[in-house]
Amino acid sequence: MAMGRRISREPIGVGVIGAGAMGMYHVRTLMTSVPDARLLAVHDADPDRARQAAALFDGRMAPSVETLIGDVEVEAILVASPDPTHAGLVLGCLAAGKPVLCEKPLSTELAAAQRVIEAEVASGRRSVQLGFMRRYDPAFVELRRTVQSGEIGLPRIVHCVHRNPSPYPGITARGIVRNSMIHELDALRWILGAEITSIRIETAQAVEDPVGPQLATIRIGADILASVEISVNARYGYDVRCEVLGEQGSASLVPPAIVRTQTAGAETVRVSSGFVARFGDAYLAQLRDWVDGVRTATARGPSAWDGFMAEVVAGAAVEALTTGHRQLVPTPDRPDLYA
Amino acid sequence: MAMGRRISREPIGVGVIGAGAMGMYHVRTLMTSVPDARLLAVHDADPDRARQAAALFDGRMAPSVETLIGDVEVEAILVASPDPTHAGLVLGCLAAGKPVLCEKPLSTELAAAQRVIEAEVASGRRSVQLGFMRRYDPAFVELRRTVQSGEIGLPRIVHCVHRNPSPYPGITARGIVRNSMIHELDALRWILGAEITSIRIETAQAVEDPVGPQLATIRIGADILASVEISVNARYGYDVRCEVLGEQGSASLVPPAIVRTQTAGAETVRVSSGFVARFGDAYLAQLRDWVDGVRTATARGPSAWDGFMAEVVAGAAVEALTTGHRQLVPTPDRPDLYA
Amino acid sequence: MAMGRRISREPIGVGVIGAGAMGMYHVRTLMTSVPDARLLAVHDADPDRARQAAALFDGRMAPSVETLIGDVEVEAILVASPDPTHAGLVLGCLAAGKPVLCEKPLSTELAAAQRVIEAEVASGRRSVQLGFMRRYDPAFVELRRTVQSGEIGLPRIVHCVHRNPSPYPGITARGIVRNSMIHELDALRWILGAEITSIRIETAQAVEDPVGPQLATIRIGADILASVEISVNARYGYDVRCEVLGEQGSASLVPPAIVRTQTAGAETVRVSSGFVARFGDAYLAQLRDWVDGVRTATARGPSAWDGFMAEVVAGAAVEALTTGHRQLVPTPDRPDLYA
Amino acid sequence: MAMGRRISREPIGVGVIGAGAMGMYHVRTLMTSVPDARLLAVHDADPDRARQAAALFDGRMAPSVETLIGDVEVEAILVASPDPTHAGLVLGCLAAGKPVLCEKPLSTELAAAQRVIEAEVASGRRSVQLGFMRRYDPAFVELRRTVQSGEIGLPRIVHCVHRNPSPYPGITARGIVRNSMIHELDALRWILGAEITSIRIETAQAVEDPVGPQLATIRIGADILASVEISVNARYGYDVRCEVLGEQGSASLVPPAIVRTQTAGAETVRVSSGFVARFGDAYLAQLRDWVDGVRTATARGPSAWDGFMAEVVAGAAVEALTTGHRQLVPTPDRPDLYA
Repeated sequence: MAMGRRISREPIGVGVIGAGAMGMYHVRTLMTSVPDARLLAVHDADPDRARQAAALFDGRMAPSVETLIGDVEVEAILVASPDPTHAGLVLGCLAAGKPVLCEKPLSTELAAAQRVIEAEVASGRRSVQLGFMRRYDPAFVELRRTVQSGEIGLPRIVHCVHRNPSPYPGITARGIVRNSMIHELDALRWILGAEITSIRIETAQAVEDPVGPQLATIRIGADILASVEISVNARYGYDVRCEVLGEQGSASLVPPAIVRTQTAGAETVRVSSGFVARFGDAYLAQLRDWVDGVRTATARGPSAWDGFMAEVVAGAAVEALTTGHRQLVPTPDRPDLYA
Repeated sequence: MAMGRRISREPIGVGVIGAGAMGMYHVRTLMTSVPDARLLAVHDADPDRARQAAALFDGRMAPSVETLIGDVEVEAILVASPDPTHAGLVLGCLAAGKPVLCEKPLSTELAAAQRVIEAEVASGRRSVQLGFMRRYDPAFVELRRTVQSGEIGLPRIVHCVHRNPSPYPGITARGIVRNSMIHELDALRWILGAEITSIRIETAQAVEDPVGPQLATIRIGADILASVEISVNARYGYDVRCEVLGEQGSASLVPPAIVRTQTAGAETVRVSSGFVARFGDAYLAQLRDWVDGVRTATARGPSAWDGFMAEVVAGAAVEALTTGHRQLVPTPDRPDLYA
Repeated sequence: MAMGRRISREPIGVGVIGAGAMGMYHVRTLMTSVPDARLLAVHDADPDRARQAAALFDGRMAPSVETLIGDVEVEAILVASPDPTHAGLVLGCLAAGKPVLCEKPLSTELAAAQRVIEAEVASGRRSVQLGFMRRYDPAFVELRRTVQSGEIGLPRIVHCVHRNPSPYPGITARGIVRNSMIHELDALRWILGAEITSIRIETAQAVEDPVGPQLATIRIGADILASVEISVNARYGYDVRCEVLGEQGSASLVPPAIVRTQTAGAETVRVSSGFVARFGDAYLAQLRDWVDGVRTATARGPSAWDGFMAEVVAGAAVEALTTGHRQLVPTPDRPDLYA
Repeated sequence: MAMGRRISREPIGVGVIGAGAMGMYHVRTLMTSVPDARLLAVHDADPDRARQAAALFDGRMAPSVETLIGDVEVEAILVASPDPTHAGLVLGCLAAGKPVLCEKPLSTELAAAQRVIEAEVASGRRSVQLGFMRRYDPAFVELRRTVQSGEIGLPRIVHCVHRNPSPYPGITARGIVRNSMIHELDALRWILGAEITSIRIETAQAVEDPVGPQLATIRIGADILASVEISVNARYGYDVRCEVLGEQGSASLVPPAIVRTQTAGAETVRVSSGFVARFGDAYLAQLRDWVDGVRTATARGPSAWDGFMAEVVAGAAVEALTTGHRQLVPTPDRPDLYA
């Protein structure tokens, strides 16, 4: 690098798989905000989309995932393709020895996630990061810090709310578990530093309604009980909340607000419109930390194991949704790699 | 009334049964704040307590409940004696044709509550009011008004929190249901205008702990699901919250706060210390409305039926606490008197 | 009192002068909420108004103020007549040796207020209370307690806001000072425990506008500077705020709110509609404390001296409004009676 | 740039003058977060500081400001050197035809700021941006948008608070105006879209205290009056507030908060610790927008004229501080370049 960077800050060559809404959001964030990354190549099942993405950052359009993963200049790969392709792509990256940031979920069937774990363990080093971006949200980080500091005593009760203004087309009750609730499933493990042991899911409605609210009651560790409400059709806005009640006190997220108006008898603040508005800072911090981890070869952030465990719990959750019963969650042995 | 009041505002002669903490709180409120009531007599199983109470308001100490209920000047009776005596005293008041405000719960066994309903129905008029004082709290009243106005659409999800700083001595898990959760059981019916159809209660702790937090999941009407957290040992303060999520939006209680301080890096408001601090205004409004109802012979406020239904649900709740299963709640036919 | 009250709780016979909106508000509060008072008589310059008021509480309509003040059963007098009559009526009460609660302001010309002080001092005991009801508002009380506790260090900067949704007819810039800002003038003295030494008032508008916002900058004690905004045409609601910044921190009133709704992208709480909604509890506490002070012959609450000092400051304020200059406020010697 | 960027996104070569705390903060932000900038060179009066900075980003240490400004690869310059050097450096950048982002203030004497305006006007294009970073703070941006949308009607009253936990060493009352209050002076002009016409400054303290709170009352446009409190020794934290009251309502900044805890009777959120914590996002957005403006040759953001006008007002403010009188603020003709 002739023009003023040290070797150590040579930007990381990044390839992107999946140029849909999420993929393009990451592309734009990398371009505008992450100097340590250099976008080189993109692949999408739709060549037109890939071509447009490549033009945006003046990079290559890879004709296949193999080409992209095999590109010698591509040092790290971001996977934002459709969910069923995730595990296979991550395995490809592992085979090629290339770090990967994979959008959640890690897989859509547990066996595939299991294979990812086996492959990464066999590789002897962590190189997979899961896109649980809440772990980079300043409010979630501070909530976890508060809980783990002991300030509120031992955690006993958690209440989470996750509301979207409207469902995406074709959403199903199971899809809500696997795509929305999965954020809470990961957040609970991460904030509390303990594993989920059982889950039950009930819905509010008498008649089946795929977009009706779900209420999960979840046991974590020995003595913690969480209730998690997921509403994908909440209309009024995007709203994510979490409170942890411990034996000495409570800690909770404060809903973001920047301006208050008072007019016509009412005092009003705006509610977030969607996950990008609410978690934009977290997505950026996630990318920056991922790239920094790649650059310094020190994996951190949510691991493949976190992705796998979220799948384990989500699997039990989907079962619970069907049966209406409390479902035990297996707690597989954690390989030393993820200690 | 020689000295300046019209006949219509002649104060109501009131007798009090039970001069413990709650009874004396009512006595002081009546004395200082309810001109339309005139305290005349008091009975307590402990004559010393009764004597002190009578001295406070210069009234009579009734040697027995019968004497008090039979006192011709006593026009209305406030029952704040131990829970197991409630139903019998209310029946006595009904037999004497005297209006009664009975602290919750109406009874400690359903059959007794049932007898109260039968006796009141047989009397042909409502004269029993239950001490569900939240129905007089301005915030609860406004929450109910908002829900019933349709502003947030059809209710679907409710989340309630009820936290006490410390348990009273000898409390049991069942006692928590019957004495603490019963407020939520009534509030849900009242806010939503629908009956509870089933309840499940789980606790956070692996090992039995009578004062551990309880989490109830409750179905109301056809399509509403509520989660209710009761923590009697929350340490940090007294905290009652309620949020109703409807199909168009959400409505929730705002925690009371009057002064904010900023010192040493922190912005702080005080949390309520207990139910008297939090619901003092509600207790006063309850007494005033009760006395006004007696004076104008127009019963309103929570009825014996509300007390009975709370017992019906609490019975199922206690069963649910034991079994850990969802328990169906019977929905007995409501007599026309309570339509 | 044959029927159950001790001598000591014999209700105080109260007469009311002035049956306008404010007077009738007090009448209704006394009737519904202050058992220790017994409304006996009322006078109003408009006999019809007086007659209606008397009928409401089944009392006497006094044909003149002299009759009312001289009524032997009237033990205490509430003055809520037009401002210019206040001082004269208070003097009449003092002459008759009867305690009086006088709506603010104490007078409309300083000489009259001075005469009240002289008369009360000559009487040798405090029997006049001024209607500065904020001193009974729980939030103001807690704010003062916080400031005086030393928790925020020595006070240095104060900011007050006083907004009405719309001006009353015929209001003038001077009237705003004498009727609205006077509450802040008293509150500053009371919260800070120090005297106002100078005041300047400026208005926002280039062209004179009697209802335009006023901004006063006020010096209190040696080292405190306050800014006070009065807006009588704020449209959006009634809003009273106060923040005290001390050398170690800040304390401020929290705007009252009871229910929060979230709909259509916005989170909303209602703003108070007017001073009765905002200060209803304070008005009640004021009446109760006044009556209790009369009953126990222990004067407390804002004194005639507080009323007089508010007039002294308001006089300087009106002068400041005219000149636009900082106006020194005299600090007359406080008679020992008010120590 | 061979490896994947389009010509149009070739990063801008940036030189930095001043490697003190502020300069290094900008350096780190550019390195970690602004891919479109490439740090090339740095100059500081202290060669050691410059050497360390250069090592950080593997760039050149320029032996003089002339060398840095004259460096052909340096396309844009960030000035974060001591205040008295600002105007001269900006003039140097203008002479070299290079865009510059200059930390506020533009100058420490008005004549120098005037020369900057003349030079930029003579150059025929805007290339100077002033470091009024609040214009990039999401909350300030939203406050301005709300005001300018007409939602609250015509602005009439503004109240600003600007509190630092502790003063920097050697601070003076005039320095507070020129370094702290200057942010409000710019923000008022920007939010309200009108010029400041007069200013008065008073201090709380009787005895002169260089770090005592200042209260400015400021007239803006025809009908707006602002009060601005500056406290550099507020101890409890860093706190910046602004409320605009219009003829139909009010708009104000919401203090940032991310986690709420409830322990020991208190509900607590943290207060910002300093301007970096509070305005970190704004500093980043400022740098990104500046670089983007350089790249696309479309100047935006606060201009030299804004810097000049802030100096004009600050000059009057310092005069006002000395005299204690309201000081008229000249309103020089704005050159067409800044229309």
